[in-house]
Amino acid sequence: MRIKCTVSYDGSQFYGYQVQPGQRTVQGEIEQALSDVHKGKFVRITASGRTDAGVHAMGQVFHFDTDLQVPAAKWPVILNQKIGDDVAVLSAEEASETFHARFDVKTKEYRYIVNTSPVALPFRRHYAVHYPYTVDIEAMRQAAAYLEGEHDFTSFSSAKTEVVDRVRNIEFIKIEAFEGELIFRVKGNGFLYNMVRIIAGTLLEVGNGKYQPEDVLKMLEAKDRGAAGKTAPAHGLYLWEVNY
Amino acid sequence: MRIKCTVSYDGSQFYGYQVQPGQRTVQGEIEQALSDVHKGKFVRITASGRTDAGVHAMGQVFHFDTDLQVPAAKWPVILNQKIGDDVAVLSAEEASETFHARFDVKTKEYRYIVNTSPVALPFRRHYAVHYPYTVDIEAMRQAAAYLEGEHDFTSFSSAKTEVVDRVRNIEFIKIEAFEGELIFRVKGNGFLYNMVRIIAGTLLEVGNGKYQPEDVLKMLEAKDRGAAGKTAPAHGLYLWEVNY
Repeated sequence: MRIKCTVSYDGSQFYGYQVQPGQRTVQGEIEQALSDVHKGKFVRITASGRTDAGVHAMGQVFHFDTDLQVPAAKWPVILNQKIGDDVAVLSAEEASETFHARFDVKTKEYRYIVNTSPVALPFRRHYAVHYPYTVDIEAMRQAAAYLEGEHDFTSFSSAKTEVVDRVRNIEFIKIEAFEGELIFRVKGNGFLYNMVRIIAGTLLEVGNGKYQPEDVLKMLEAKDRGAAGKTAPAHGLYLWEVNY
Repeated sequence: MRIKCTVSYDGSQFYGYQVQPGQRTVQGEIEQALSDVHKGKFVRITASGRTDAGVHAMGQVFHFDTDLQVPAAKWPVILNQKIGDDVAVLSAEEASETFHARFDVKTKEYRYIVNTSPVALPFRRHYAVHYPYTVDIEAMRQAAAYLEGEHDFTSFSSAKTEVVDRVRNIEFIKIEAFEGELIFRVKGNGFLYNMVRIIAGTLLEVGNGKYQPEDVLKMLEAKDRGAAGKTAPAHGLYLWEVNY
């Protein structure tokens, strides 16, 4: 039986999602719990994609196969008893045998949170990047609009990206201002390595006047990581939702 | 010159506010920083009151005396460079030589946050108590109303309380429901040891039907800690605001 789970995690104390020898990872934590439940038999989980160290998730999705006769809705209770309190399986359901958490993704939404308070606030230190500057939100929104739609995002992906086809479609980039924080909502059909963090970093540099909104067009055309802005820090980023 | 500071801290990694030998405390962290700035001369800080291990503060207030010729508004910047990122001085101003952060308190507001989601959410694990039950908010509000005003709060203070006069005036207890969380706002002219946590714990037991709202009257009359409900955990509690 294939089980599809939605999981949330605070990335602060994880060395990222993907299993790494000798490091605490989200995947490792869940696979260990599943293997315990399966009496020591190793159980692989497959997620919608990786997240880096420090990156959070509100609604990451993974699947696994089991031959245990456990009602799907019981899996959150079983797993949450065995995993750390900084990761929680929110829901589980039976999926078809052909469902694949990575290959079947239609769209994902990421959010990037920026706190613009003059003082770095203790409660936000792991959950929003501190950027105590005045920003021009309208300029940022203009720049964001240039990034929406289908583009080659080579300039907005890590130079280490090995994928050849860097054309992706961004459905929207919304910038919301709420109680001293900016929330960048980015939804698209696929994301390259570091793409949302580079978009957020670049938009902040539009906001502070280093770049003009139109400069973003030249950055896209350049197809060169060096042409775009900085990579914003990991701890402001959330994998918010995965849609199938 | 006497300086009045407002400070916020995430209590998770502190062994409470008050200095304790060999433990990391908020007071110890700030006094160390101030002593560094004063070239090794010890500087005592005096807060509005203590908070226990795990308890948070949005607006704790303390004062200290200095003979350094530093503009008052510079103190947050100076101190925040030297203290951990889980504590931040939000503002500072010059106060009169007779101002006293503890003796001059007129009222304080505490908040207690309860998360009622079925699953314990990773991002709330240090910042709200998890109480995954259906609660009767109207019953809780009725019970809270009985606690408002001037009463002897012996039943709502730790049995270890040494203070003789346990009469305090509660200006209000408001219960707000917001996005899967309950926020208890309690404002009064003074609080006994554990008082807000016992009020929160008791109100939750009214909410789940263990007690009726009127039972709270009998608890007050009993003047006995054993008569009231449980002490709710520290990590849901915030010293929100101190008024002078």
